[in-house]
Amino acid sequence: MWFVENYDEKASLGLKVKKKLHEEQSKFQKIDIYETEFFGNLLTLDGLVMLTEKDEFVYHEMITHMPLCTIKNPERVLVIGGGDGGAVREILKHDSIKEVVMCEIDQRVTDLCRIYFPTTTCKLDDPRVKLHFEDGFKFMDGYEGYFDLIITDSSDPVGPGVALFQEDYYRLVKKALKPGGIMVSQSESPWYFEDTMTSMTGAMANVFKNVQTYIALVTLYPSGLWTMTAASDSLSLYDFDEKRSAKIAETCKYYNPEIHKGALALPNFVKKIVHNTK
Amino acid sequence: MWFVENYDEKASLGLKVKKKLHEEQSKFQKIDIYETEFFGNLLTLDGLVMLTEKDEFVYHEMITHMPLCTIKNPERVLVIGGGDGGAVREILKHDSIKEVVMCEIDQRVTDLCRIYFPTTTCKLDDPRVKLHFEDGFKFMDGYEGYFDLIITDSSDPVGPGVALFQEDYYRLVKKALKPGGIMVSQSESPWYFEDTMTSMTGAMANVFKNVQTYIALVTLYPSGLWTMTAASDSLSLYDFDEKRSAKIAETCKYYNPEIHKGALALPNFVKKIVHNTK
Repeated sequence: MWFVENYDEKASLGLKVKKKLHEEQSKFQKIDIYETEFFGNLLTLDGLVMLTEKDEFVYHEMITHMPLCTIKNPERVLVIGGGDGGAVREILKHDSIKEVVMCEIDQRVTDLCRIYFPTTTCKLDDPRVKLHFEDGFKFMDGYEGYFDLIITDSSDPVGPGVALFQEDYYRLVKKALKPGGIMVSQSESPWYFEDTMTSMTGAMANVFKNVQTYIALVTLYPSGLWTMTAASDSLSLYDFDEKRSAKIAETCKYYNPEIHKGALALPNFVKKIVHNTK
Repeated sequence: MWFVENYDEKASLGLKVKKKLHEEQSKFQKIDIYETEFFGNLLTLDGLVMLTEKDEFVYHEMITHMPLCTIKNPERVLVIGGGDGGAVREILKHDSIKEVVMCEIDQRVTDLCRIYFPTTTCKLDDPRVKLHFEDGFKFMDGYEGYFDLIITDSSDPVGPGVALFQEDYYRLVKKALKPGGIMVSQSESPWYFEDTMTSMTGAMANVFKNVQTYIALVTLYPSGLWTMTAASDSLSLYDFDEKRSAKIAETCKYYNPEIHKGALALPNFVKKIVHNTK
């Protein structure tokens, strides 16, 4: 048995499956969980790969440590989406963290991940973590100048994730950030989502002074060449704390200080797609 | 209609196909050429993706310009394999080149690429290019201290390519190189070919002082996270000509000086797999 994700009738990814572990239609989306032959357990939402046990470290390390090692003394982080808990696990590796707020729209994702993905949900009961299950867009409106970092760990710009790729959202993010804070959003693949990357980085550039796209090699996302984009009025991912980065890297399988710098190098064809300011 | 490549019953890649353009069993392997929906024409050998018109630039720019920008005045280059001509096209972008020898075992690959891949074969009739269609292992034995660079642009270590991943081969390469020359070989994916990467970089480290693996994001190869490995007794890819690299990058879709440096940053889990000397 194979799980197959079709990339818009251009290409497809298949994963050999041992058995299906769970299937349900939540209020927001179709949730499926499989045990794969090689990648451990697999979570899909509306038929799209979200994570596997074997490769999730790439995405979660890269969406957290790049911005966190750039902030001088990160204390308060908001994760929009990220119901699997992987981002929260990585954030808590930084000693200075006092509070991590996770706002996932679909509680069923988190409830099921607690059963089938213990290695990503392992830190959700840490006393510094606050879980909210509601619309991230509305939730964030209650905050002003509060967070050092806001991470948008969303699915693709279809279904419940669509609002999280638009300028109105980035304006809300900016309001909820401390002055001088930074945001990071997963920003799709230049091979299959060129238009999305152009429009979302353009929208960020309308709101923030610095927009920086970087690369994370998420092997089971379309093309494997995945991107994340950071935006800030004052911080630049180039100016990061190399010493702290090296210390964090001791606990990582992907991230390290050389990767931090190397991930910011964009292929020429990607530079042409994004609105990056440096 | 879909072309599907099965990654050892772990995962698979599908490419939507408009039509099959050619199919034959040569003396060495099964050759298939398709017109795909999104990636242009596709060449497969024994059912494995070799290149498409749309993404070939990544592989060919990265296997050539990384070593060429590291050599002070590259004049003579040998390509073992590479029958599609893409590596030769990139090599000839360097003004100092006097001679490019390509030794492809299967002339049918090159003959068919001249028909179906005009953008990769476009420089094969340049007067500086010499084509040989024979076994690369035996061919190279006739040379001593001749080449600045030897590129192994081979298929996987199955079928005709298997000898090109072993220590005996690297010793022959070293003999054919000028003292202080450099070799580069495609070196597979850490996700699916961990053992091959460990054994081939180990074999290189037995023959050369410096062994350096770097990353090229070849989206249609297994996992997208592809590697190439350079080996030399005196050259290091870190010490490259940034000015020449920037000039070459003007003609590239992937390679540029930041990518040159960034490609050398390895994720922690890849560092553990390879025998790299620095």
